[in-house]
Amino acid sequence: MFHLRANLSRQLAAGSDRGFEGMENPGYRSGSFDGLHHPSDDDDDDEMVDIAGATLDFSSTDDVPPLSTGYEDYSSSSRAAGMNGNGPSKLVDPLEDLVPGVGTYEDFNTIDWVREKSKDRDRHREITNKSRQSTVALLHSLCDAFSGWLLMLLVGLMSGALAGGIDIAAHWLSDLKGGVCLTDFWFNHEHCCWMSNETFQERDRCPEWQSWAELITGKSEGAFAYIMNYMMYIFWALLFSLLAVTLVRAFAPYACGSGIPEIKTILSGFIIRGYLGKWTLIIKTITLVLAVSSGLSLGKEGPLVHVACCCANILCHLFTKYRKNEAKRREVLSAAAAVGVSVAFGAPIGGVLFSLEEVSYYFPLKTLWRSFFAALVAAFTLRSINPFGNSRLVLFYVEFHAPWHLVELAPFVLLGIFGGLWGALFIRANIAWCRRRKSTRLGHYPVIEVLVVTAMTALLAFPNSYTRMSGAELISELFNDCSLLDSSQLCGYKQPANTTDTGVGNSLADRPAGENLYTALWQLALALIFKMLITVITFGMKVPSGLFIPSMAVGAIAGRLLGVGMEQLAYYHHDWVIFKGWCSQGADCITPGLYAMVGAAACLGGVTRMTVSLVVIMFELTGGLEYIVPLMAATMTSKWVADAFGREGIYEAHIRLNGYPFLEPKEEFEHSSLAVDVMRPRRSDPALAVLTQDGMTVGEVETLVESTHYSGFPVVVSQESQRLVGFVFRRDLLISIDNARKRQEGIVSTSQVFFSEHAPSQPPDAPPPLRLRGIMDLSPFTVTDHTPMDITVDIFRKLGLRQCLVTHNGRLLGIITKKDILKHMAQIANRDPDSILFN
Amino acid sequence: MFHLRANLSRQLAAGSDRGFEGMENPGYRSGSFDGLHHPSDDDDDDEMVDIAGATLDFSSTDDVPPLSTGYEDYSSSSRAAGMNGNGPSKLVDPLEDLVPGVGTYEDFNTIDWVREKSKDRDRHREITNKSRQSTVALLHSLCDAFSGWLLMLLVGLMSGALAGGIDIAAHWLSDLKGGVCLTDFWFNHEHCCWMSNETFQERDRCPEWQSWAELITGKSEGAFAYIMNYMMYIFWALLFSLLAVTLVRAFAPYACGSGIPEIKTILSGFIIRGYLGKWTLIIKTITLVLAVSSGLSLGKEGPLVHVACCCANILCHLFTKYRKNEAKRREVLSAAAAVGVSVAFGAPIGGVLFSLEEVSYYFPLKTLWRSFFAALVAAFTLRSINPFGNSRLVLFYVEFHAPWHLVELAPFVLLGIFGGLWGALFIRANIAWCRRRKSTRLGHYPVIEVLVVTAMTALLAFPNSYTRMSGAELISELFNDCSLLDSSQLCGYKQPANTTDTGVGNSLADRPAGENLYTALWQLALALIFKMLITVITFGMKVPSGLFIPSMAVGAIAGRLLGVGMEQLAYYHHDWVIFKGWCSQGADCITPGLYAMVGAAACLGGVTRMTVSLVVIMFELTGGLEYIVPLMAATMTSKWVADAFGREGIYEAHIRLNGYPFLEPKEEFEHSSLAVDVMRPRRSDPALAVLTQDGMTVGEVETLVESTHYSGFPVVVSQESQRLVGFVFRRDLLISIDNARKRQEGIVSTSQVFFSEHAPSQPPDAPPPLRLRGIMDLSPFTVTDHTPMDITVDIFRKLGLRQCLVTHNGRLLGIITKKDILKHMAQIANRDPDSILFN
Repeated sequence: MFHLRANLSRQLAAGSDRGFEGMENPGYRSGSFDGLHHPSDDDDDDEMVDIAGATLDFSSTDDVPPLSTGYEDYSSSSRAAGMNGNGPSKLVDPLEDLVPGVGTYEDFNTIDWVREKSKDRDRHREITNKSRQSTVALLHSLCDAFSGWLLMLLVGLMSGALAGGIDIAAHWLSDLKGGVCLTDFWFNHEHCCWMSNETFQERDRCPEWQSWAELITGKSEGAFAYIMNYMMYIFWALLFSLLAVTLVRAFAPYACGSGIPEIKTILSGFIIRGYLGKWTLIIKTITLVLAVSSGLSLGKEGPLVHVACCCANILCHLFTKYRKNEAKRREVLSAAAAVGVSVAFGAPIGGVLFSLEEVSYYFPLKTLWRSFFAALVAAFTLRSINPFGNSRLVLFYVEFHAPWHLVELAPFVLLGIFGGLWGALFIRANIAWCRRRKSTRLGHYPVIEVLVVTAMTALLAFPNSYTRMSGAELISELFNDCSLLDSSQLCGYKQPANTTDTGVGNSLADRPAGENLYTALWQLALALIFKMLITVITFGMKVPSGLFIPSMAVGAIAGRLLGVGMEQLAYYHHDWVIFKGWCSQGADCITPGLYAMVGAAACLGGVTRMTVSLVVIMFELTGGLEYIVPLMAATMTSKWVADAFGREGIYEAHIRLNGYPFLEPKEEFEHSSLAVDVMRPRRSDPALAVLTQDGMTVGEVETLVESTHYSGFPVVVSQESQRLVGFVFRRDLLISIDNARKRQEGIVSTSQVFFSEHAPSQPPDAPPPLRLRGIMDLSPFTVTDHTPMDITVDIFRKLGLRQCLVTHNGRLLGIITKKDILKHMAQIANRDPDSILFN
Repeated sequence: MFHLRANLSRQLAAGSDRGFEGMENPGYRSGSFDGLHHPSDDDDDDEMVDIAGATLDFSSTDDVPPLSTGYEDYSSSSRAAGMNGNGPSKLVDPLEDLVPGVGTYEDFNTIDWVREKSKDRDRHREITNKSRQSTVALLHSLCDAFSGWLLMLLVGLMSGALAGGIDIAAHWLSDLKGGVCLTDFWFNHEHCCWMSNETFQERDRCPEWQSWAELITGKSEGAFAYIMNYMMYIFWALLFSLLAVTLVRAFAPYACGSGIPEIKTILSGFIIRGYLGKWTLIIKTITLVLAVSSGLSLGKEGPLVHVACCCANILCHLFTKYRKNEAKRREVLSAAAAVGVSVAFGAPIGGVLFSLEEVSYYFPLKTLWRSFFAALVAAFTLRSINPFGNSRLVLFYVEFHAPWHLVELAPFVLLGIFGGLWGALFIRANIAWCRRRKSTRLGHYPVIEVLVVTAMTALLAFPNSYTRMSGAELISELFNDCSLLDSSQLCGYKQPANTTDTGVGNSLADRPAGENLYTALWQLALALIFKMLITVITFGMKVPSGLFIPSMAVGAIAGRLLGVGMEQLAYYHHDWVIFKGWCSQGADCITPGLYAMVGAAACLGGVTRMTVSLVVIMFELTGGLEYIVPLMAATMTSKWVADAFGREGIYEAHIRLNGYPFLEPKEEFEHSSLAVDVMRPRRSDPALAVLTQDGMTVGEVETLVESTHYSGFPVVVSQESQRLVGFVFRRDLLISIDNARKRQEGIVSTSQVFFSEHAPSQPPDAPPPLRLRGIMDLSPFTVTDHTPMDITVDIFRKLGLRQCLVTHNGRLLGIITKKDILKHMAQIANRDPDSILFN
């Protein structure tokens, strides 16, 4: 017990030495403190740890049976212990079966996928074998088989319901910045006017809905009323954001940001306790509504993925199969990521592909089916809640009437280039800003930062109607195709005299821009600059913030501007060569809304480097294959352009910024180094710390473990031969020795430890030996010293390894861990290898 | 040279010992003969080998530089040889660089994915390094980077064009069975009537189109004309099928069947030379048209996947990157499978998911993007060819107007159960029939078999209009929703008196069935039984035959019958509890077309066990999320029901029937055996044949290789220590020794062979030693003897291994090959382990 503690404190000290370097946020700091302390704390599911600066962490996803718990949990954990990747349980000594905690992981560590999957297969095998014996067991096995589907159903229902709630609440709170519904204050603007019995002229000006100026001063027009509304707008914005940041800091520091970088890391096998816990869920849901309503340049799509993953993680606790197994739980989380996008955009197929392309690490076919199912359930739950009041599933429903022409591919590619450039630039600027936040005193005042940014945003956003409206509304308006009767500013075209008699068929024909439209274009151009700048400093603050909507908004504005430009060009110069043959006068040649959509896709693609999933999401928004080619052209161009400036998407960049141990599955390992160049110990280092399969005493083992900080130790036949027998994890070793000292009679420091099958012969007066074969992994992965690193990296990625032993002609030479690989990669890329923080 | 031949003949003899057991078709037999002979034949790309029964094989995909070729190909193959998975080329002795053929594979062998991918990475690294030196090299590297996209573009264009041609030709030939267009004989029925200038009453009875009876006897009505048409129908059917089967047997035996089982196997790493060659492509394209037109119960969707893969394989030859690398080529083939489905159904997204879910083995994200791109290109090429004449991309365009109700889920699930039962039954019956064909004399008369089945089909199909029309037309008609004006038999409802005045809004209301509809239902019921039986014996004959359309037809008929039944129930009993609240009189409650669609999905799902891709294909047909839930419910039920009877889909069943070495990635390995239980040699067997790193002479090595039939040999430090150094492939060893004897001076049988880094000391009068370190894989995969087989199988699947060495405490114990694993699995499942035929 003492050793573990000592070791933990040492790790802790090592962690704090680095100070703020590499720590994303104070939440992280407190989280890591908490996680490291945890195993020695009591088993309170919601314990509060008050550390350095009143940040609290409510970790609720703790499955590790702490060392000091009683032994009431034996029956279930013995199974896990007996399946330590060592093959069939028959080989495991029943004596060692009983140690709880063996086979679990510490916080901020990487899981061993092979071990976890093997555990699950053993579990499954046991259930299948039992099911042949009795009907009850058969029923149990059936339940077990269907529990995955049931879980998916629950995840879909819960996430869909939450997303519906968030939509409704955010809509109401956003409108509250402008005014209030007098009849029922809980109605939003649209709903309020929709419920109104009185008749009124303009669609959104019903008597029941009063702006704050009207309510307070009684006047709805004039400079004073404007200033009054302005003030109230800023007031509400500040209030919402203050609430949001305070809640995040006080109750769930993990609730900030978009969450996708962390979820990617978690899905790749990292453990961050509490990141997907119930407090994070509750706080993230509430603060997401507040943050979106405050008018900041952020979206709710990324955080919705986090929310869905929290739901999934919490629901996993209902099923032993998923609660006990980190690998199985990650399958569920992959599906939950699909659910998140499914409810964010109403695009279930796009969601599944997003999870596959962007987030997931291990995505077997079974998960594909299940995530599809869950995404559908969630989408239908959301639709039955009907938050947009139009029974549309999708966030931005668009229907274009005109086909596109091949010539238009040129502007679409141009939009792709713009998107790629902006994406690359945004990532650089945002990362530079976040690095600054971490390294300077700026990071110490998150609340003030949020308030300042909110105040700036509100001040600048209010005068411009395109920035005043929410991001989603803006995109929706930009995507919209102008009909003749459309009264919005963006459709302020001059009515040509000769089209009035041609009727409906021509109602969408290109028309010359009018006064209103020019005003709108100016405002849009200003909005574009504003959005481009403010998003850089907004993303990464201590409030929940997604990037999808701001990126799409930037692209949609740029696209719409280009689209209107093209339209006017086509109208005034339809005799030019490029327009000849497909764009005659009075025809509907150019659809500016389509340009907006293409631009949105291009910018989002530049920032996130999504391709297929992005196109499919857009395809689900329009529901026609017609526009896939423009979207494809733009996203591909955007990806290629952005990749030319740096291959990382924003999520990967943030993962690297935070030093998470994430092995990017997309990028090939290009360098030609060999395993021997990467492994520890290096040639100049002392030899590898190994255990021998017999001949060591408990005291010697403890000394060895204490004197190092490695997470595991290879076991060899003897120091001379260095022939590998197995691998044992530090945590398992410490827990087992501690347990044996307490519960097994006669185990003292001079007791022999043996990992071999038979006890070594000893003098008769010696204390009884301690057998630890049960906790040893008898099938450690090995590669030879000549194995090229590209193959080794491939093995790590594909099998999800944590470490791999290196041999030369059958002798153990060294060890390569995931961290070693990441450090090596950082070194090759001329980055600081110490930027990789966690194991 | 001699040794290799001897070895090949031995393998050949072993193969023929098994006789017809496990040989799918004569084509296979001849193919395997050819493949095995091949390396010693001359380098004719299209050599013809006439073996046993006048079956010829034109293998055109032969990249293996045969042993006896001159050395003109050195420059390009030296690179491949230098990248033998041994890491950076700097470590490889330049002397050994020069042997062509090292690193290639024999026919009917499994590739080593790790080695192939490592080769490609080395190639890429070389190009990248060079690109820093000169502008030309930089351009070359850019070309190389974009060659994948270019290849995809070409595959899409070519496959789309071919699919369009096949559609048009098949449509015309199918109609030719009934009559001919007098104005222009190359018009099909619809086109002919469409071009007609005269007016005529019934849609499909224009004067220009004459049935054979009209043309020959001058009468279009009456018993004689009917018999005349009947005879002509049978005549054309027999003619087409005779042509098809003769062409297949004469020119490309690999062109028969659907091709998907073989493509799955090839994608998993197996080599079948000529299976995707140009002769297969040409013959398959022609015979597919003939087979579809002959009226047999088969579809063109599966074969289209094969056609697309052939295109891709042939186009791969244009790019060194793909020609030289088996792994890279398989990425392209995965994309081609997506293209095939994309053009078959006009469903690009569904195609990509089909490839991902059903066909592919290794599907990295890059392949996802590329297959999506290729699928889109193909779909648009097909659309611009416009084979259906309606500018629709999809095969069965449907648009339903009524929503479905929750109560209807019960019949949908019922359809799912039907689909699952039929799928399971079909697979059993078809496999039993195919096994019978292989084991009895039936298999000797493929031409007669095809003719008899065609005659039976034509005889039975002609009298029933639903079997007389092609499968695609039938499905299209069954999916169709009846409008008031629809004149087809299936829409023969009674016109209720009171609905005529309600107008369009109610034109789709449920109506009572009329005389016509009852006739149609009887005919459909008969067609159902006919299709169910005839498909069992049709699939697996020696003509190109897909299963999608027949399965869908069965399901669509069943669904339509149930749908009409439900509709009538709802009409006459709309006061029943289950209909109350959602189905009032005169409303459009039930859409029989939707039932047909759900039934089609269920049956296809039962046969192939596709889920997500199937639902997405169907979704792309209807273009609305609305009907995803019914489809999902039916396909999931169908899969579960069918899985209860046997977990294999039809393709896996055929793979197993043919004994291909295919490691199913979907199924978990359930048994608890250890690596030591599976490895060779068994305890009673003689020790493993190993080479020592020095101390063996050329003669000894040759004797060892000759006396065994293994594909590779481990290299150990010494016979005593058994510590592993590396692994060397038989083929590489033989080629290198052969080459050294011919080209290197002084190499005789007593020359020492060494694999170590430095030459061993020898007496001064000894012949010069032969260094073979260059062909040795220095990083062979090893597992310990205690590794559970589930982990081992996982490693094989994920890394695409061919073999893996087994060690105990650092000593080499044995070897596990893919074939050993498959044999072990067969043994566990109580099947004959010798059913696994190939390596």
